[in-house]
Amino acid sequence: MMGSGVHQGAFELKSMLDVLDIDGARVGDELDKIGYAGETSTGDFRADSYVELHVEQGPILELEDYEIGAVEGVQGISWNEYKISGTANHAGTTPMRLRHDAGYVAAAISVEVRRLANEMGANQIGTVGVTKLNPGLINVIAKEALITIDLRNTDEQKLQEAEQAMSSFIEQLCKAEGVTFSSRTLARFEPVSFDKEMVSLVAETASTLGFRVKSMPSGAGHDAQMFAPNCPTAMIFVPSRNGISHNVAEYTEPKHLQAGADVLLQILLQKSS
Amino acid sequence: MMGSGVHQGAFELKSMLDVLDIDGARVGDELDKIGYAGETSTGDFRADSYVELHVEQGPILELEDYEIGAVEGVQGISWNEYKISGTANHAGTTPMRLRHDAGYVAAAISVEVRRLANEMGANQIGTVGVTKLNPGLINVIAKEALITIDLRNTDEQKLQEAEQAMSSFIEQLCKAEGVTFSSRTLARFEPVSFDKEMVSLVAETASTLGFRVKSMPSGAGHDAQMFAPNCPTAMIFVPSRNGISHNVAEYTEPKHLQAGADVLLQILLQKSS
Repeated sequence: MMGSGVHQGAFELKSMLDVLDIDGARVGDELDKIGYAGETSTGDFRADSYVELHVEQGPILELEDYEIGAVEGVQGISWNEYKISGTANHAGTTPMRLRHDAGYVAAAISVEVRRLANEMGANQIGTVGVTKLNPGLINVIAKEALITIDLRNTDEQKLQEAEQAMSSFIEQLCKAEGVTFSSRTLARFEPVSFDKEMVSLVAETASTLGFRVKSMPSGAGHDAQMFAPNCPTAMIFVPSRNGISHNVAEYTEPKHLQAGADVLLQILLQKSS
Repeated sequence: MMGSGVHQGAFELKSMLDVLDIDGARVGDELDKIGYAGETSTGDFRADSYVELHVEQGPILELEDYEIGAVEGVQGISWNEYKISGTANHAGTTPMRLRHDAGYVAAAISVEVRRLANEMGANQIGTVGVTKLNPGLINVIAKEALITIDLRNTDEQKLQEAEQAMSSFIEQLCKAEGVTFSSRTLARFEPVSFDKEMVSLVAETASTLGFRVKSMPSGAGHDAQMFAPNCPTAMIFVPSRNGISHNVAEYTEPKHLQAGADVLLQILLQKSS
């Protein structure tokens, strides 16, 4: 996705070549090593159109018994990290009313993320995947808590509403508990809508070939979102067993791989004719 | 407290000598090293009565402007650890309704501990000091969560009610979220009530000396609770600045140290006369 971003002019080449992996390896050096650092300039290639075939990486197609997903766009992503600072104290001698418990605040934020996502329904999702307490001892009220909030929505307006709702909640909760917090944004991508005609072409081609098609958003980021601002773009999804991806258990049935390839082939033939 | 437990026959000598510190040091070996492993047998010493002077380790006396606490007993302590097992999944592609989020369950338990303590009021307190998520990544729904629950009450019946309420909550929540859990008890001490006459003696002695006295439970464990089953026992508390203890910032004003020593002296003189 980062490579496509450079290719399509969304990211600057030099800064991307300087990105370091968690083990310290530099992208540019590694591209040189494997001979992938080509001579072609970036940002000036304009495709006529772009169609990407991908496994869903989610459970929907399998659960609802569809063979093809006609992807309408990619969810917006909002990643924020919060650091809560309270007061460490003895869990046995500190009355409930006198606590400034960073761990409680983190937990209440996590529960609110779930509540908000359920309340907003539709395409709003929210996850707290990181919660770390300090000192993290059974009989000590936590002095510090670190949590992350992952919010996603296909609608930028709704995503902003969710962000705002969480910000207000956290501000009020911290005030009530007598703790302070700092936050930083780790990532923020607006939702991407694919070209309506291209999405219809995917859906119609799949139907014509006899496949059951569902129009759906993508929950994960893809190369296609980097092409979408520059040319008519769409994606074809095929089912992922149990929704599992980026894992040795990732699996898509051969008949579904074939279905996806058939749809892609027919679209390419039609666009090039 | 463990030493007093051996001394008063609550714990078996050999098993306590075999206890290992987190750095691997064995209690018995360390006692030998410093020459503290005496020859006197344990479990057969019976005191006429026992009075212990201690800093409060909590904020109550200071906040409410008392000089002496007449300690009526020690809270019961219930420590349990829960391990929640859910399903790791992609935070972007997994709809809310299909999640089995161990991190969410841990957070909801933590929030319930606070709610329950507030609802029960009085002397019920509850703390979740440990929360660990696995894998602990921003965009992955947690597969596992480890949390601890510290519940305390001066009333054994109420403490059991709190334990039961949390067990039921956790069982129902895990069922609703489609996750499993295992639990183990890390510690369980029943509340200890000190001898009413001895507690009155502390309160009356302090009043006679002109000190402001509050009758109160102890939130922390103390040697006195090991003596309480065997002889009339009570404790004298003096204020702890900001409730801080087990910390270089622990501080009690000289006038409060003197007040505590005065009360102890007068009781000893009276009991030995």
